[in-house]
Order: sequence, then structure tokens, then C-alpha cells
Amino acid sequence: MNVVLGPNRYGKAETRVVRVVRDGGVHHIKDINVSSALSGDMEDVHLTGDNASVLPTDTQKNTAYAFARKYGVDQIEDFAILLARHYVDSQPSIHHARVEIEEYFWDRIPVSDGPHLGLRDKQHSFVRSGREVRTCVVHHDRDGRTTVVSGLKDLVVLNSTGSEFHGYIEDEYTTLKPTSDRILATAVSARWRHASDGSAFGKSYAEVRRCLIEAFAETHSLSLQQTLYAMGKRVLNTRREVCEVRMAMPNKHHFLVDLEPFGMDNPNEVFYAADRPYGLIEGSVLSDTAPDAAFAWE
Amino acid sequence: MNVVLGPNRYGKAETRVVRVVRDGGVHHIKDINVSSALSGDMEDVHLTGDNASVLPTDTQKNTAYAFARKYGVDQIEDFAILLARHYVDSQPSIHHARVEIEEYFWDRIPVSDGPHLGLRDKQHSFVRSGREVRTCVVHHDRDGRTTVVSGLKDLVVLNSTGSEFHGYIEDEYTTLKPTSDRILATAVSARWRHASDGSAFGKSYAEVRRCLIEAFAETHSLSLQQTLYAMGKRVLNTRREVCEVRMAMPNKHHFLVDLEPFGMDNPNEVFYAADRPYGLIEGSVLSDTAPDAAFAWE
Amino acid sequence: MNVVLGPNRYGKAETRVVRVVRDGGVHHIKDINVSSALSGDMEDVHLTGDNASVLPTDTQKNTAYAFARKYGVDQIEDFAILLARHYVDSQPSIHHARVEIEEYFWDRIPVSDGPHLGLRDKQHSFVRSGREVRTCVVHHDRDGRTTVVSGLKDLVVLNSTGSEFHGYIEDEYTTLKPTSDRILATAVSARWRHASDGSAFGKSYAEVRRCLIEAFAETHSLSLQQTLYAMGKRVLNTRREVCEVRMAMPNKHHFLVDLEPFGMDNPNEVFYAADRPYGLIEGSVLSDTAPDAAFAWE
Amino acid sequence: MNVVLGPNRYGKAETRVVRVVRDGGVHHIKDINVSSALSGDMEDVHLTGDNASVLPTDTQKNTAYAFARKYGVDQIEDFAILLARHYVDSQPSIHHARVEIEEYFWDRIPVSDGPHLGLRDKQHSFVRSGREVRTCVVHHDRDGRTTVVSGLKDLVVLNSTGSEFHGYIEDEYTTLKPTSDRILATAVSARWRHASDGSAFGKSYAEVRRCLIEAFAETHSLSLQQTLYAMGKRVLNTRREVCEVRMAMPNKHHFLVDLEPFGMDNPNEVFYAADRPYGLIEGSVLSDTAPDAAFAWE
Repeated sequence: MNVVLGPNRYGKAETRVVRVVRDGGVHHIKDINVSSALSGDMEDVHLTGDNASVLPTDTQKNTAYAFARKYGVDQIEDFAILLARHYVDSQPSIHHARVEIEEYFWDRIPVSDGPHLGLRDKQHSFVRSGREVRTCVVHHDRDGRTTVVSGLKDLVVLNSTGSEFHGYIEDEYTTLKPTSDRILATAVSARWRHASDGSAFGKSYAEVRRCLIEAFAETHSLSLQQTLYAMGKRVLNTRREVCEVRMAMPNKHHFLVDLEPFGMDNPNEVFYAADRPYGLIEGSVLSDTAPDAAFAWE
Repeated sequence: MNVVLGPNRYGKAETRVVRVVRDGGVHHIKDINVSSALSGDMEDVHLTGDNASVLPTDTQKNTAYAFARKYGVDQIEDFAILLARHYVDSQPSIHHARVEIEEYFWDRIPVSDGPHLGLRDKQHSFVRSGREVRTCVVHHDRDGRTTVVSGLKDLVVLNSTGSEFHGYIEDEYTTLKPTSDRILATAVSARWRHASDGSAFGKSYAEVRRCLIEAFAETHSLSLQQTLYAMGKRVLNTRREVCEVRMAMPNKHHFLVDLEPFGMDNPNEVFYAADRPYGLIEGSVLSDTAPDAAFAWE
Repeated sequence: MNVVLGPNRYGKAETRVVRVVRDGGVHHIKDINVSSALSGDMEDVHLTGDNASVLPTDTQKNTAYAFARKYGVDQIEDFAILLARHYVDSQPSIHHARVEIEEYFWDRIPVSDGPHLGLRDKQHSFVRSGREVRTCVVHHDRDGRTTVVSGLKDLVVLNSTGSEFHGYIEDEYTTLKPTSDRILATAVSARWRHASDGSAFGKSYAEVRRCLIEAFAETHSLSLQQTLYAMGKRVLNTRREVCEVRMAMPNKHHFLVDLEPFGMDNPNEVFYAADRPYGLIEGSVLSDTAPDAAFAWE
Repeated sequence: MNVVLGPNRYGKAETRVVRVVRDGGVHHIKDINVSSALSGDMEDVHLTGDNASVLPTDTQKNTAYAFARKYGVDQIEDFAILLARHYVDSQPSIHHARVEIEEYFWDRIPVSDGPHLGLRDKQHSFVRSGREVRTCVVHHDRDGRTTVVSGLKDLVVLNSTGSEFHGYIEDEYTTLKPTSDRILATAVSARWRHASDGSAFGKSYAEVRRCLIEAFAETHSLSLQQTLYAMGKRVLNTRREVCEVRMAMPNKHHFLVDLEPFGMDNPNEVFYAADRPYGLIEGSVLSDTAPDAAFAWE
């Protein structure tokens, strides 16, 4: 038996870059979290500690900051592509780069100049939007292949009716009662693969997000799986730049409280929002003409 | 030396109540987290374990759910008053109740019926707003005194200019350079005391929140303390139902990245958002005619 | 009505200091988290943004690091006293300093030199102990008063029997059944006030911790309040340097699972560990000869 | 273009099971967190919401509790195998089960009966050990294949010397200075694949853990990759039941504080423990005779 080195990568995680662009008095803010991971000729560093092939993670941090100044940051996917290509193209020992970026959203703060006047946006004041986090993962290798996966997470949605659950398997450990009216709530994590690296990522993000939320709201649900599939299908049918969607959706249970001991009924009105355990539904929906995923999902 | 029992209280923390009201097909959702803490004749339970004066925390949980059904939940302050009075009025051994409630906000999901049609809200579909958490703390005792403190937390705001810091003490451990243009960012935690228990709490909350945010945006800041004071003062000058404001505001540092080693300048464009350590500014602003606070801030 | 500035303080929170002492080849490690908060002549900075009385929080961070080198770090209480006195004594505008320190524990890593040889400690290798966090809060003011509160948090303990709960008030919202045998589990947060600032803090900490844990284990409990009181009383009766103990103990509920639907009994064997809601018991135990607490608990 | 369903699974996550075994007066405690995920004939539930093939996640929760009573819980791997086989063997629509379990450790509480007497363990009192979390992931499918991956996470270790970093690539974005003496600290996440499902998992866990920690402590490190590889190699060379090890190790940076502005040197004594960004090293080490991994790592 011999011991061998298997798949490996290394990099700098969670470099927090905030960029402010001043357009006259109007400021724009971009708030991102960059993680890069590189692989390549890494036998020596693992076996003997020889770092001759290693671009330090500290340099990767510097590069993220320098590129933010040099090239600006518009769509996170484009910035990730720029970084990934830089690492592979500039260093012979680096054969593959994976760059992951999270983006946090800010809204402008509106102020009023007086009681009978309308609101106007302050031009350099922002309030952090607590809506979902936007994400992307880009891979690039020295054969010139680039894959782009966009995504979002922490998008919490709830239907207060329009959800049923019945007709399931009942075995000796089943105590659940079927229901024809329940709360359906989840925190959507979705990632979608682009068919190419040339999408208009900003517009694409807004539209995919809209598809996901609308399909969640409009699907009369007999199971969370059905809702998940409808959401992914809506994206694929609407956005031709997307060829595959993967989702993870916890079932954030809202249990009807039994108020009978207190002489009250509870007509789907008062619920207990539970933390753990939770159902977890994971699934993917893809186009049958999707190109090979290569390393896109790694 | 004798050992004696000092101040004490007990209760049920973090009962998660979600209430759905169906107004025809239009649903309304209220999502709150209730914590109650009681005190009174509690010598025996501490010294001998005799529970004759103890209303179990499990019962407090049940009461929160039952009251949500019986009385509904409109403004969290009113619901907290209802609960606090119930405990003191119904149990001779309970002399004092403290009820704290957090509220999480949900927005309606808009959907479109077609490409050339406008948006309409789905009537039972919601997306969790990630904006701040609304809070309140109500005290009530058997002498009939009631105090109400409203608040918010996790309201993250940022000015990308209009903030300076200079003229401070310099001692032998000072390395900080003065600046006339920096990012000022903070996560506001604010609590405000009502002069009575009869405010119109919904309207009051919206207006206090507006005052805080606008004063943050409109204050040209020479120190975070100055901004904090301006925010509190704006509330007191605008909202006569409020007699005191207490705030805690971490200075969420955004440090300008030194890009000179890479041959670049950095004209207030690229920043590093730091986690720890952070400045922390805590202060209170009050009316000189404010009534006695009693136990309001406990 | 005039608006006035109320109580306020400012400082640097969570400066993470790690100090390594090399005693020949044997290394010692100290891992602490320092937060300082100052108050004094702070009218101007709040009202006009004049920072002439402000020692910047950045300087406070530097001071923590410089003092760790200059004076070393042995007991956290002594280090906090040193810092608090420095701020008040060196700056006329600072009238009061509060220094809070957390300490994280590390154990040495034992290694063996061969299968039949014993273990020996590696002299510079450590594994983070996941046991409780040690804490202290020191106040010092320009009248020369110093108060010291030591503490611990996140000490999770459990008795799998020896706990009962019955004889409590039953009202219309009570559904809880009395029990004569339950699991009692909690995460102890305890803080204890020293009668002077001259305790031998290292020895004191070890002994107070022992008292708390032993009293938890040895008390046959009829209520969590009884256990809390017994723990505090044990400390006061054993450690004369301590004059008051304050504790907060969540009741980490372990509910017996109903296995009857599956044809099984459950003789106190299988439990569901719940997250929320939880009971929360807070109480203090003190000596009737305790000196005045002044600002110790702020 | 047609839309098709891709890989999917569903289950109940984070069922918290605590089991107490009473051996006369001596109690034993097992504290685990069970997550199960099933897949199989799931086209219908996704496309039409027909749940006829779905064993509800609520039933999976019940099964975990019932099995804890019926079969007991000794090694988490064995318990996971039991559950995974049950789902696949009892339900024709379930073709594959993945069961993941975390285990949290508790230590007995020692007490003394008097000042001159030794310590004895309380027989039903425990303190939660903050050491690492033990983990496992078991897969089982209807072709009878079973894979077992054991692991640990949150094992935080630190060498205060014996670590160097130099000889790396320097490009235009490099500012890092080489060092021949630094702190090396990390939080080890390791998972190891067993060559069969019949290991003595308890003994194996203790020994693998020992290998990982000892190799960390004993490796004079020229890079974190070298340390990672040495740790994995030690496991493979020592434990023949293990055929592959995968590790993720963040570089928990400890930066030497520059005290020169205060007229002090800093001979590797005072460090700043940074949170973000952090280096992240991921790698695998395997035996060249390892059997095919199948779905073990999914």
C-alpha cells in the first residue's frame, strides 16, 4: 500500500471588499466577499513543504483588492471570471482556479425636506437590505474552460395557505396526520448554471430571482418537492441562458398550536415556528440540452 | 455572615408565535418572539424548592399562544402589556412581570400576470424582509405601574462620505491618522422609553425609525458620538410620546486599502470591511421633563 | 422641554490578544479578548463633535497590545485593573473606565514516542479546550474606586436524574404534568463580585468553578431555582473573597419522547433536546455583609 | 429543449436524540444529531405532487427516536447503518439512504467528599466537553452497497513555533514577508473513509483522532499543506481500516503586532488573532489500494 495525494486546493477565503464609486455627488456601493481556491502542481508543497509553486493566500487577498481598483466591480460573475483567469494565466503552476463571491445589498436612504414635501434619496447614505445574499462560483482551468454558476441564499418565503400534504407512505413509525391546508415556508438556496460565460449577469439575476419567487407564490403545493421543481422549471423555461438549477430548501415547519386544552379552537391562525428538526428538500432541474457540467458544481 | 437571596426572576424565553389572519382571501402575518420573566414571592422556591408560588414557564408559553388566539396580536407593545398585566393580576405570588417581544417583518410577494401587465401582490405569499428587528420591553408591577420601552436592532446603515475624525487626544500609544473623509457605518440598536403606556405604537415606531435613519443620513459627522446624539435628539424633538432614547452603535470599520505597493492610488474607493475589533459607542439622550424611569430599563 | 445627554461610554470592543511566553523550549499561551469602555468629559463630542476629550478606540486597541508586551498577562482581572487604571490616571478627561476580558483555554497536546512508552506533552503544541469561557469586568473611577467581577459562561452541565418538578401553580393555561424524575440541563453563566481588588484571582477562579459544578451535581433538585441558589450559596460559604454571585441559567429542556404509538415504553431513556423556547432562571445570592456594589454590575 | 428532473433527495435534518442508559446508579449519556436523506422513485412527487412514494420526514424523525429505544446507540456509524438499511429495505420506493450523525461529548463531573479526600465521579452528572464534534456519513443503496465515512470537526489546534513559510511565488501583488518562525493554528475538519462497513468504530475514532493531533504537533511545518498531508498519511499508515482521508483546514492567522511605534520590540510574543480573511487548505490523502469510493463522499 502506498499513500498518495488526492484532490486538493488552497486559497484565501472571505476577503471583504467594499468599493465606493463617486459619480459626482452620487455614490454607488458594492459590498462583496471574495474566496479564491487554486490547484495545480502541488505535489511538492504537500510532500516536502517546498512552496515554489504556491502563490500565497495573502497575495490572493491583495489581488482581490487591487483588481477592485484596477477593473472596478460590476457583476460579481464578471469579477470572478477576471480573477480566475488571472491566476491560471499568470502562474504556470496554477492549473485551475475557483472563485466564489457573495454580494450583500444596500438600499439608498430616502429623506424628506419637510412635512409636505416628497422624499428624495440621500446620495451617499445607505441602509443594508436584509434580502437574500447573491452568490456565484466560477471555475477556470488552463485548457481555457470556464464555468459560471450564479445563485442566491437566505431568501425566506412563506405561503400562509395553498399548501397540502397527504397521500404519503404510512409505516409503523408514522404519526403525522394528513392536511389540506398548511403553512409552507422555506429559506431558498438556489444555484443556476449558465450555458456560457457570456450572460448579462445583472439582468439574468433579477429575472431568475423573480421566476423563483413567483413560482413559489403561484404554485398550489401538494409537496415541497413539487414547489421546488416548479421553481426550477420556471427558471429554465424563462431564461435561456440557464441550463441547470440546483436548490436546497429546508421545510421551516409551522405547527398549528393545540388550543383545545384552553377551550379554544385554532382555525389555522396560531402557529409555533419550530427550529429543529426540519425537513430538507434538495433537487436539481435541468435542460436535456445542457452542455456538460465539467467542474461547475465543485 | 449570612447568605441571602438577591434580585431574581424566571420565565420562558423565545416562544415563537406566528399568527395568520385571513381577511377573505387576503392574509396578514405577524411573526413574533415572546419572552416573559416573573418575580415575586420566590424565597421558598430558591431555599427549599417549594414551587407553590411558581407559575411554570411551560404555562407562560401556553399563555402566549392562547392570548394570540384570544386577543390577536396587533402592536407588540400592546400584546406585551396584556401579558404582563395578566401574570401580575391573576397570580398573587407574582408581583412583577417583564415581557420582551421581537418582531420580524414580512413583505408581500408581487407577481405579474404577463409581460405587459403590472404587478399585483399575492394575497397569501410573503418574503421575509431582512430589515431591522422591532423590539419592546414592558414591565408591570402589582402597584399598577407600567413602563414601555420600544426599540429596534440590526439596522445597518452607512454613509460613504460626510464623516471626519480628527482633533482627538494623542498619547504614546496613538498611531491613528486624522481623516477628513471616511466611511461611517454602524448597526443601530436603539431603545426608546414612552412617557406613558398609551402611545399609538405602530405609528410611533414608523416615525421613530424614520427619525433615526434620516438623522444618521443628514448629520455631517465629526464623531460617531455626534451622530448618535443627533439621532436621539431628532427623535425627542419630533416624537412627544418618547422621553428617552438609548443607543448602542458599533463602529463597523471600513479601512482604506493601501494599494501603493501595487503602483496604484486609492482615492477613497476600495475598502476592507473589518470584523473585530470594533469601536462601540453607547449613549442616551433624554428629555429634562422625562418621568422617572422606574424599572423600565431593567 | 430640553434635550440632555444621559449616561454614555465608548471604547474598543473585542481586541483579540494572544500572548506566547517561551520558557526555554516550553511555551505558555494566553488567549484573551479585551473590551474597554471609557466615560468622562464627553458633552462636547456628543453635542459638537469636538474630539478634544476623546482617546480614540484605535489607541485603546494599541494599548491592550502594548501592555501585553510591557506587563505580560497573567490573571485577566489583574490585566484589566492595569488597563482601567491607566486610562483614568493618564487622561484627565477620562473619569471612569470599564474593562471586560474573556479568556479561552488551551490544553497541551500529549504525544507518545512509541507503543510501549508513556505520553509526554509537546512543549509548544496546544488544543483548544472547549470548556467554559472565563470572564471579568473591572471598573475604576477617578475617585480611586475599583470593582472586580469575575465570571464564566457556556459551562454546560446535565444531571440525568435527581431532578423533580411538581407542586407548582396550575391555572387555566397549565398543561404541564408534574414529574419526580427528569433531566436537568443548563448552560451556566455566573459572575461573582470580589470584596476587594486584591484577590488571588487564579486560585479563586478554580475554586469558584469547582463550587458551582459540585453544587450543581450534588443538589437533589426540586426546581432549577433551588439549584441556582445552592450553587451561589456554596460559593459564598466557601470563598470569603466573594461577596455576591449572579447567575443566569437557561433550562435546556430534554423532553421524554412518546414512543407509545410504536408500541414501546420509554423509561426515562430517549429524550428530545429542544432549542426554543427555553426556561430562563436568573438570580443573585449575596452576603449580608457585602460592601456596596457601586458600579460593579454595570 | 425539455426540462428534466436531476439528482434529488429529501429527509429530516437535525433530529436531536439524547439517550440515557442507567447501569444501576451509574448513568451513561449519548448525545447525537441525526439527519437522514432518501432518494428513489421521486419523479411523481416532483412533477405532480403525488406523495405515494414519499416516507414523510416526520416519520424519519420518529424512526430515529424509536430506533434509539429499540436498538440503543453505541457507535454512531453502527446506528447510521441501521437506519440507512431500514429505509432502503422497508420501502420499495426508497433506493438510497444517506444518514449523517454528529455526536457531542460529555465528561463526568468529579466531586470531592472533603478537603483531604480524593475525587470521585458523580454517577449521573455530566459537563459538556467542548472538544471536537464527532461525525459520520453512511450511504446504503438497494444494491446492498454501504459506505462509511467517519470524521471530526471543530478540533482547534495551535503550534506556537515550529512553523515556517518562505520560498513561495512572488508576483506584482505580493507583499507578504517570508518567516522562519510563526504560529500555526487551525480548526481541523477531517473525514475518513473506511474500507468496509465493519470497522470497530469506537476504537478507530480514538486512534484516528490521536494520529491527526500527534502528526499536527510533531510536524515541523514549512506550509499548512505539508502538515495536512502528514496528518492524513499518519492515519493511513497507522489505521488499516481507513483507505482515504479528506481534510479542510483554515489557516487561523495570528499576526505579530508591530510594537515599534511604542518603542518596543516583539520577539514572537504578542499576536493579533484575525477572523477574516483566512487561508483555507483542502486536501485528500488516500491509499493506492483503496476500493472505489462510490457515493461515499456525496
